[in-house]
Amino acid sequence: MDFRSELKRRAALFENELGRFCSSQDAAIPARLRESMDYSLQAGGKRLRPVLCMAGAELFGAACESVLPMALAFEMVHTASLIHDDLPCMDNDTLRRGKPTNHVVYGETLALLAGDSLFLYAFETALSGLLKNGADPKRALEAVKLFAEALGPSGICGGQVLDTDRASQESRQSFVNDIASMKTMVLIRAALCTGAILAGASGKKLECLMEYGRCVGIAFQVADDILDVVGTQAEMGKTLGKDAEQDKRTFVSAYGLDGARAVLHELTQKAEDQLAVFGEKADFLRELALFLENRTR
Amino acid sequence: MDFRSELKRRAALFENELGRFCSSQDAAIPARLRESMDYSLQAGGKRLRPVLCMAGAELFGAACESVLPMALAFEMVHTASLIHDDLPCMDNDTLRRGKPTNHVVYGETLALLAGDSLFLYAFETALSGLLKNGADPKRALEAVKLFAEALGPSGICGGQVLDTDRASQESRQSFVNDIASMKTMVLIRAALCTGAILAGASGKKLECLMEYGRCVGIAFQVADDILDVVGTQAEMGKTLGKDAEQDKRTFVSAYGLDGARAVLHELTQKAEDQLAVFGEKADFLRELALFLENRTR
Repeated sequence: MDFRSELKRRAALFENELGRFCSSQDAAIPARLRESMDYSLQAGGKRLRPVLCMAGAELFGAACESVLPMALAFEMVHTASLIHDDLPCMDNDTLRRGKPTNHVVYGETLALLAGDSLFLYAFETALSGLLKNGADPKRALEAVKLFAEALGPSGICGGQVLDTDRASQESRQSFVNDIASMKTMVLIRAALCTGAILAGASGKKLECLMEYGRCVGIAFQVADDILDVVGTQAEMGKTLGKDAEQDKRTFVSAYGLDGARAVLHELTQKAEDQLAVFGEKADFLRELALFLENRTR
Repeated sequence: MDFRSELKRRAALFENELGRFCSSQDAAIPARLRESMDYSLQAGGKRLRPVLCMAGAELFGAACESVLPMALAFEMVHTASLIHDDLPCMDNDTLRRGKPTNHVVYGETLALLAGDSLFLYAFETALSGLLKNGADPKRALEAVKLFAEALGPSGICGGQVLDTDRASQESRQSFVNDIASMKTMVLIRAALCTGAILAGASGKKLECLMEYGRCVGIAFQVADDILDVVGTQAEMGKTLGKDAEQDKRTFVSAYGLDGARAVLHELTQKAEDQLAVFGEKADFLRELALFLENRTR
């Protein structure tokens, strides 16, 4: 297996679907709203969650194509959370993926509603697409439930609240782990595992995949915190150094730079350990964990 | 059938479920977030959408109790949309249901996230509750899909965008009808019809119910616009006269006060006409349409 070409293949399949989706007409959606949603959806990004969703399905023998509606839904909610994160009443950020943020272009009102719309359209897209694809209803319900759990008050929304909580009495290390779990990990893990559930995953194998997703999901945030310190703005496409400036608690501030690198390496190893049960069928996920450990953007 | 006592019975059943829900512990949800969500959920309101959801189920022979998770989900998303509507970048309102709005009490950041959380927790609640209640998976998928469609960019979020569009070239009358459809009607109609779908509704009977829901849903907004002019702040529990002050396009400004009253009456009659197919089983919905026509708050 050539990892880079496999990664490209999945990402290209998704970009194609996203392009088709954004160019499809829906007269019921106000044009300005659609434009603002599409602006952020098409602003690029790693498409990690869709790729994971497809990889989860393939690991259990299903075609990537069968989970594309679910993959789209993950990119939509991820984009929605970024639009709301960037709002003036949140991080007040003006640059994202090398472009002006949504509210800078469309104003605060429309950005708020574009975020809301993407959160909710994600469910509509996933449900109608899965019904159209003839997905097993029981599996579809379980998958969309896992999706929803990753988003709400015990998922990314709750993580955002913790992240703005300056008064926490927790130790710095357990605090950054809690935030990374809720804000980043749950969605990454859910992307992988909903794909797998739709393809029929259950029991011990699903548990191993959940644990792989947990390790890779936290590792992703550790790498992000490291790159906020050592990365270049050109590569990252967003304002860097803001964590330190805003005195945010990050893995680097909690463990030191070398300590954070050690945590990242340990999580990556632990993720790989979970894949033994799948044999060489999991080679893509093995390489993906390494790829995410060593990314520069 | 004594309408008032039937209405009270359903509302009490729902309040009881909501109280149970709000007092249930979930250690995974940050305490400040939970408090802010509960504050708005428990601020009262007519609980119209939950009552409709239960009425839809009963019309097709199911117990109200079987759709309580779905009823909760409707109240959650309705509450979420109100929290976001009241934000400074939207209507900038400080009073709702006789109490300070969410952002006045908890600040803008937490209010934004409480709204997001309620939108998303609604799906989690509906899906996990329906799975636990042993709902038919196919029906549950269809119901949650209808729910999602009512919320996204062609539903209430899209309606909000239209409502803030000062540059519309549409005639005033078709404009207020479009906004009322997307912003208010779709959610009211979906509440009624998801309850019915979960209880097995389909075909011609479901179509009649959809049309009843459409008429009652628009009528609800017409009555709201009328009450914004002739109601009292004490009864309505919110700042009145803001529509005229903000030069919002309402049914009163589009049709005049008497014209709006005529539209309201006509829609109510049309709603009742749809119920013939159900015989006396639909008496509750018959009386409900009249009750909503004549409400003073």
